[in-house]
Amino acid sequence: MTASRLVSRATWQGSLDGFLDRIRENNSAADSSGLSSVTVEGKCIGLVKPEFCEKLKAYPEVFQAVGNGQSFQVNAALHSSAARTEAVAGVMEDLRQKGAIEGWRNELYPVTESFNREPLLLVERAAATYLGIKAYGVHINGWSQTQQGIELWVARRSPTKQKWPGKLDHLAAGGQPHGLSCKDNVVKECAEEASIPAELAKKAIPTGVVSYTADQPEGCKRDVLFCYDLELPQDFQPEPKDGEVESFQRMPLQQVAELVSNTQEFKINCNLVIIDFLVRHGFLTPEHHGYLSLVSGLRQGNCS
Amino acid sequence: MTASRLVSRATWQGSLDGFLDRIRENNSAADSSGLSSVTVEGKCIGLVKPEFCEKLKAYPEVFQAVGNGQSFQVNAALHSSAARTEAVAGVMEDLRQKGAIEGWRNELYPVTESFNREPLLLVERAAATYLGIKAYGVHINGWSQTQQGIELWVARRSPTKQKWPGKLDHLAAGGQPHGLSCKDNVVKECAEEASIPAELAKKAIPTGVVSYTADQPEGCKRDVLFCYDLELPQDFQPEPKDGEVESFQRMPLQQVAELVSNTQEFKINCNLVIIDFLVRHGFLTPEHHGYLSLVSGLRQGNCS
Repeated sequence: MTASRLVSRATWQGSLDGFLDRIRENNSAADSSGLSSVTVEGKCIGLVKPEFCEKLKAYPEVFQAVGNGQSFQVNAALHSSAARTEAVAGVMEDLRQKGAIEGWRNELYPVTESFNREPLLLVERAAATYLGIKAYGVHINGWSQTQQGIELWVARRSPTKQKWPGKLDHLAAGGQPHGLSCKDNVVKECAEEASIPAELAKKAIPTGVVSYTADQPEGCKRDVLFCYDLELPQDFQPEPKDGEVESFQRMPLQQVAELVSNTQEFKINCNLVIIDFLVRHGFLTPEHHGYLSLVSGLRQGNCS
Repeated sequence: MTASRLVSRATWQGSLDGFLDRIRENNSAADSSGLSSVTVEGKCIGLVKPEFCEKLKAYPEVFQAVGNGQSFQVNAALHSSAARTEAVAGVMEDLRQKGAIEGWRNELYPVTESFNREPLLLVERAAATYLGIKAYGVHINGWSQTQQGIELWVARRSPTKQKWPGKLDHLAAGGQPHGLSCKDNVVKECAEEASIPAELAKKAIPTGVVSYTADQPEGCKRDVLFCYDLELPQDFQPEPKDGEVESFQRMPLQQVAELVSNTQEFKINCNLVIIDFLVRHGFLTPEHHGYLSLVSGLRQGNCS
């Protein structure tokens, strides 16, 4: 028996209402009735808000309006992934120059019907949310077992980050770019964001998935996040490296749970991954009223 | 760092097809179009197969046919939970005497719209599947960390068990009866089925939920199972007690995974709980083709 089993296990003593609020906030676009679909070869690959719809109509040679003009298909004459990638990139670049797409990343996301399938095209990461494309990412819960119980490493995002400046975040996390396995992405993000050596980062354990459909200013964010647990030695100290993180702090699980339940301090999607952690580690239990809504709420988004 | 982290982590090296087959088998009644609903106060509480439908029609004072006779409501004149419980019990007892309900348990299941709500009525456990009532249970993964990695305790069910005789099973598991918390049910089942002392059983950690909708000969089995992990000391030996289990064996995770993937040796619903264990402990990974179908398939049933 290891030390962990000798520590009496604390559990959450309050209501689950705050956690359920965080789940709702992440699924603010669960009702997609006001959105227009984008299809490639008959497969729906995107959901677009009305404002961006209007912009796409200026490029009928790439985005062909279908039916009453409330949905689009990528021109069927573009037969290959490479041809579609090039044509769509041209439109996105033009929209970027017109100021209609912000936060260009120079990073390509694969557009697929489901994970691990051959991409139907590749698209600039910044454009993914505007087009409502399903995207994938990895989130790493960095935790240690202390005398007081489980503690979780929490990052404070840099105040100069373009997205979610100053918010609390995971030890490391990142979008899943084209051509990199989740496992390798975990190692890469752990190194870049928290100076974690590869040998240690490789010990991260994949533990499942959360998904959501969030309404954001630029569009519909449809994400599937692969969750990892990385147990860190008690004396290990992550260090910011690439400027994305301002500082790291290790917090007792109770404090993390209070921040999730009672505040919006965490970057919005981190809340789901942390709630999943609290469920898997038994900090939230079937005795809590609303437990089943909470657990099933963690994979509300299209999870394919 | 504990010993567990020094052991190199094995992962599954084959395809997920066998695991996906087990998930499909558990959801053989996912298409409910051939079933008739049973409602109480306008809330759907059951889904009944045509054969049992015909039998219920003999009791119109309790099960009132609605519309074209393809659904039933429990007589609205039965205003209280107690009144409904008594009236439905009378019908079920009569059907039992006529041989239409087998496997009587003398154990009451709460019938609710969702877990932890006040029951709309109570119904004999054996009748629950005939009526297609959503039922709840606890399943306990008993595991140990050995030099070879994680090993799981597997029970062989008694050859004289009424249900699933001789199949492989969890360390302990049981239906969730009325008036007992999940936590207390875990302790009770661990004692009854595996002679595990309460002090040890209380260390079981709730880790989440699986759900399914299975077509079984008597009816539609709609279950939500609360999953628990109980780490046992390496020298602990569970012992059969109440005659439900013939023997216990501790198996390397690889062997358990092969049994799930390649055979139908396990009692059908145990497969889901074990797959969930394999996912949470990183034995199955996002690199496996079909991982997202697998993970999201674990909660296909109504999970409320």
